[in-house]
Amino acid sequence: MSVQKIARMAGVSVATVSRVLNNSDSVKPANRQKVLAAIEESHYQPNMLARQLRTARSSMILVLVSDISNPFCAEVVKGIEAHAEKNGYRILLCNSGAEIERSRSSLQLLSGKMVDGIITMDAFSKLPELSQLIGAAPWVQCAEHDDTGQISCVGIDDDVAAQSVVQYLAARGRQRIALINHDLRYRYARLRQQGYTRQLKEQHLTWQAIACASELSFSAGKAAMEQLLADETVPDAVFAVSDTLAAGAMTAIQQAGLRIPDDIAVVGFDGSELGEMVSPPLTTLAQPSNEIGRRACELVLQKIARPDAPSQCVIMQGELVLRGSG
Amino acid sequence: MSVQKIARMAGVSVATVSRVLNNSDSVKPANRQKVLAAIEESHYQPNMLARQLRTARSSMILVLVSDISNPFCAEVVKGIEAHAEKNGYRILLCNSGAEIERSRSSLQLLSGKMVDGIITMDAFSKLPELSQLIGAAPWVQCAEHDDTGQISCVGIDDDVAAQSVVQYLAARGRQRIALINHDLRYRYARLRQQGYTRQLKEQHLTWQAIACASELSFSAGKAAMEQLLADETVPDAVFAVSDTLAAGAMTAIQQAGLRIPDDIAVVGFDGSELGEMVSPPLTTLAQPSNEIGRRACELVLQKIARPDAPSQCVIMQGELVLRGSG
Repeated sequence: MSVQKIARMAGVSVATVSRVLNNSDSVKPANRQKVLAAIEESHYQPNMLARQLRTARSSMILVLVSDISNPFCAEVVKGIEAHAEKNGYRILLCNSGAEIERSRSSLQLLSGKMVDGIITMDAFSKLPELSQLIGAAPWVQCAEHDDTGQISCVGIDDDVAAQSVVQYLAARGRQRIALINHDLRYRYARLRQQGYTRQLKEQHLTWQAIACASELSFSAGKAAMEQLLADETVPDAVFAVSDTLAAGAMTAIQQAGLRIPDDIAVVGFDGSELGEMVSPPLTTLAQPSNEIGRRACELVLQKIARPDAPSQCVIMQGELVLRGSG
Repeated sequence: MSVQKIARMAGVSVATVSRVLNNSDSVKPANRQKVLAAIEESHYQPNMLARQLRTARSSMILVLVSDISNPFCAEVVKGIEAHAEKNGYRILLCNSGAEIERSRSSLQLLSGKMVDGIITMDAFSKLPELSQLIGAAPWVQCAEHDDTGQISCVGIDDDVAAQSVVQYLAARGRQRIALINHDLRYRYARLRQQGYTRQLKEQHLTWQAIACASELSFSAGKAAMEQLLADETVPDAVFAVSDTLAAGAMTAIQQAGLRIPDDIAVVGFDGSELGEMVSPPLTTLAQPSNEIGRRACELVLQKIARPDAPSQCVIMQGELVLRGSG
């Protein structure tokens, strides 16, 4: 006996049987009667039918995105989507930010078996709480991860990437390299700051200035740059940890009547299309965003297929793309 | 008897009872035994418990977004999110594009009662299929809608908005105004094209040229503009139906050695932050994006509270924001 047989007996679709079992309002009364009659006639237990429906694979993956308005995140999501769909999976998104309550709500889908696996881009500082909520479900950390190695992860080496930016600017003769960083609850922000500070030391550059942007947006980047420009000593180069921040910094520099790159060089991070839209075009540390998404999806599908497979971390390399801004 | 009482009897959390009822793998064997023993002792039917869990409000709204990488969509989502959270609701996103299969997968959440209501930004041409999938569930159409008035909707008057752009360019003496449009499966794209053509006629301008972009991206806008520039007669103004397309058009114009706005004026649509990032800054028809999201959320919450409330359509006005590009 199965849901399929009940559907045949009642002369309705499997979806209708499912809706009756789930007590949905969207079933015509006549159809509801037919289904209930078929269930009674079959002496079949409704809760077993409901379980059968529930334990079927949902073929859905939940992606907790830190910020959908960030072009980097959108590109990672595209990579996840493309690989998921090739494998018969669909994705649902939660624009979680660093708010654990938003993540908690969407993770209720796990207990209802509405999703088979999870990919998170949530802030590093939230990982212990996420760990509790996600439990033993298939899970891959993307762009952000902890160091325990217990959860599979995909990302780039942020420390090395940040060092290569500072090294490049120093080689071009820049003496006062400032950093526009994001919230240090993100591990990538800590690592890029660490790389920045380390490489300044390596280059024997003693001047340093760090402005913290409240979010990864154009306006936050502009405000951070205005803050740097208000100081007594002004930088001759700025490294911003995202292209959106860099675009804001460029506008602040130009509005102050300074030239890019002559007075101040600007280097961004991510390698999003935005870098081609601004003027001069943005030099940026490009991440393989689409590929990061694809690999994260690959890993979560492996976990779904073999929950006992060992976890693995994939660390990719960024690449400095030289354009007109620095 | 309730799930809460079973939890107390078993000495576990309600979430653990829920996981046992949902046959989840993430419950410790010892806890599973305790819960099953409590259920047996209480003579309570597991399927009724499961139903109790299922019929509770999920306090989740599903948003079908046409393209999360479009800054306009991201801004509408922000408006929805802020209003939802003020009212104790959370949102889940499906990056549906115009693909009905993606929408279908996420709408399975309706039958599982995992979401209480739906906001769609899906293409107009998909609305009949969506209608079938969504049935009688609370539903609001956002930015895209049909004309039947049976489903609540929020958006701007796209025809009037497009006309005001053409009127403005004509008043500035532009004679050859081209349109960079998107896929005509979107109703907004049809209406903006209609407004464009109407207002050209009104202004006695006989020259017209329309390029269709394959998606709402920088590169598609650039390609569409290159196509327009390859024609024998080149436009002296371009109206692009999104700021991302306009940014691409600007790059194509500048790469061809032409000046903005002297040789070709450029006007975008949406009023996203992107318009401030490009150089010269973009003149654009600004939509009240955040407010569109807020109103859509308000309407869907009303429908959830009173499913029999009459449908309503909210039509807002766009606003021409003048900057340096035209």
